[in-house]
Amino acid sequence: MKIGIYGYGNLGRGVEYSASQNSDVEVVGVFTRRDPSTVKTALGAQVFSAADVERFKDEIDVMIICGGSATDLPKMTPMIAKCFSVVDSFDTHPKIPEHFAAVDSAAKSAGTLALISAGWDPGMFSLNRLYSTSILPDGENYTFWGRGVSQGHSDAVRRIDGVLDARQYTVPREEALEAVRSGENPALTTREKHLRECYVVAEEGADLERIENEIKTMPDYFADYDTTVKFISSEEMKRDHSELPHGGFVIRSGKTGGGAHSHTIEYKLTLDSNPEFTAGVLVAAARAVYRMKSRGETGCITLFDVAPRDLSPLTPEEQRATML
Amino acid sequence: MKIGIYGYGNLGRGVEYSASQNSDVEVVGVFTRRDPSTVKTALGAQVFSAADVERFKDEIDVMIICGGSATDLPKMTPMIAKCFSVVDSFDTHPKIPEHFAAVDSAAKSAGTLALISAGWDPGMFSLNRLYSTSILPDGENYTFWGRGVSQGHSDAVRRIDGVLDARQYTVPREEALEAVRSGENPALTTREKHLRECYVVAEEGADLERIENEIKTMPDYFADYDTTVKFISSEEMKRDHSELPHGGFVIRSGKTGGGAHSHTIEYKLTLDSNPEFTAGVLVAAARAVYRMKSRGETGCITLFDVAPRDLSPLTPEEQRATML
Repeated sequence: MKIGIYGYGNLGRGVEYSASQNSDVEVVGVFTRRDPSTVKTALGAQVFSAADVERFKDEIDVMIICGGSATDLPKMTPMIAKCFSVVDSFDTHPKIPEHFAAVDSAAKSAGTLALISAGWDPGMFSLNRLYSTSILPDGENYTFWGRGVSQGHSDAVRRIDGVLDARQYTVPREEALEAVRSGENPALTTREKHLRECYVVAEEGADLERIENEIKTMPDYFADYDTTVKFISSEEMKRDHSELPHGGFVIRSGKTGGGAHSHTIEYKLTLDSNPEFTAGVLVAAARAVYRMKSRGETGCITLFDVAPRDLSPLTPEEQRATML
Repeated sequence: MKIGIYGYGNLGRGVEYSASQNSDVEVVGVFTRRDPSTVKTALGAQVFSAADVERFKDEIDVMIICGGSATDLPKMTPMIAKCFSVVDSFDTHPKIPEHFAAVDSAAKSAGTLALISAGWDPGMFSLNRLYSTSILPDGENYTFWGRGVSQGHSDAVRRIDGVLDARQYTVPREEALEAVRSGENPALTTREKHLRECYVVAEEGADLERIENEIKTMPDYFADYDTTVKFISSEEMKRDHSELPHGGFVIRSGKTGGGAHSHTIEYKLTLDSNPEFTAGVLVAAARAVYRMKSRGETGCITLFDVAPRDLSPLTPEEQRATML
């Protein structure tokens, strides 16, 4: 299977690494909107200009689109799907139906196959919500995020006057996790499930009390949460907070036997690198797209539409013998 | 969707309960090898003789076969698949390829669709091994069982002279779980991962020391494990050990980014009732069989071949809007 990587930030680099772990996957090239001569790939993939992508129509089986969900993917995915079968990691949950419709229309008229919203949430977490709900219809789903870096919240802190750098971690509340695991099916809002931890590098002489107060009272982002703020040096920031860990939990608890018995299904991710894990899902999804496309499927799909068999490089016989 | 339940023990009763939680599922009847007049169903499903099952060929969409893996299913599933699309929970792992081939041949020649080995292991645990391995190719899978009742080991203890009743729990070793979660990828045998706890009701005046010694030195079952034996009264057995809880963990830990980052995927089940949870998987699988059969698919499949979408009663639009 020959793939292209459209966009080369943390996620694109993760896809290049992930492809190197899969012997059935070949990276034809990286496509960038920057000047290709300024982009150095981690493992030596060739770099081309995004403007030339159509020339590769017959050389690439699946294009993995590594752009951001806010502004890139809503335009990029329908556009690229006119030439290529594609995979993206669109993760703005409330806008998924709209994105799905736009991509479906583009892919259907071009005769390509497009899988959107692959990653971990949406992605592996979504699959777990769907499987668990199908098995235990009488129950509740709970999703917790973290411990991990939230880019949006980190950016919000960075915009405060006197802040040089900031990192915000979303942290699941242990007591909320325990209440859910116990099968009590508590009603919990997002803020009751999570804490927010901020690490901040302030300008010399800045009013730390004011900064802390501005963070803790920031509407939408922090005001309704239990938020802690810790001031650190830029050396500490670099040493302790330069990675992008993330993860979380999907828990479903449900009843059977006329209410006599409780069951808990818990799926937990602990990720050193959010983009590299997402990249692993994208590459497995690209394999499924390649296979399903060669069976004649077109239009827009998600991981919900993919038989897990198609994600694996093993034959169905090998899968049954080693993993069933 | 109209289902039949072939066999009515703990699992068949679980299927009857699970069907009642799914408004798109109707139970046409229970089929038993016993005298139908002696079988009382939990929720009032009609009972018929297994000998009459062929008469229901046109009235039942999917037959859920609720027999044991040791002797029932290897005969029953290929036999019933000659008349009906079926689902079973065949769980003798090393014999799955053989069972698959026998069922595939029967179903293909009859034009029916048969899904085997649904449940939690094989079943949900298998799915997690497959998904995780596809996403993180460079890593290791670990499966832990328990804390839960092992029927085979309980039976082995019951056969010892002087034992009136016994219950054996398989328990994951906490230190083995922690070593796996840490990403160390330790090499662990089944016995290094599990402890065995036995609760025994002895005959009055029996030699407890001899019984304990016979248990702990029993080859294959206990000799190589850390085993604890506790003698209890038959009242305590009834009060504290009459349920069939089970569960366990599937954990994969893997590297990305050229080895720079570690990730851990953990799937955990905590089940009050092993057969009732398995029944939930069987009913969802029956829904997928019904849909896939109506799209023309025949032969033998497993959960690996099922797009998760087909397990859910929701429409694809509803699934994307609420669970993606």
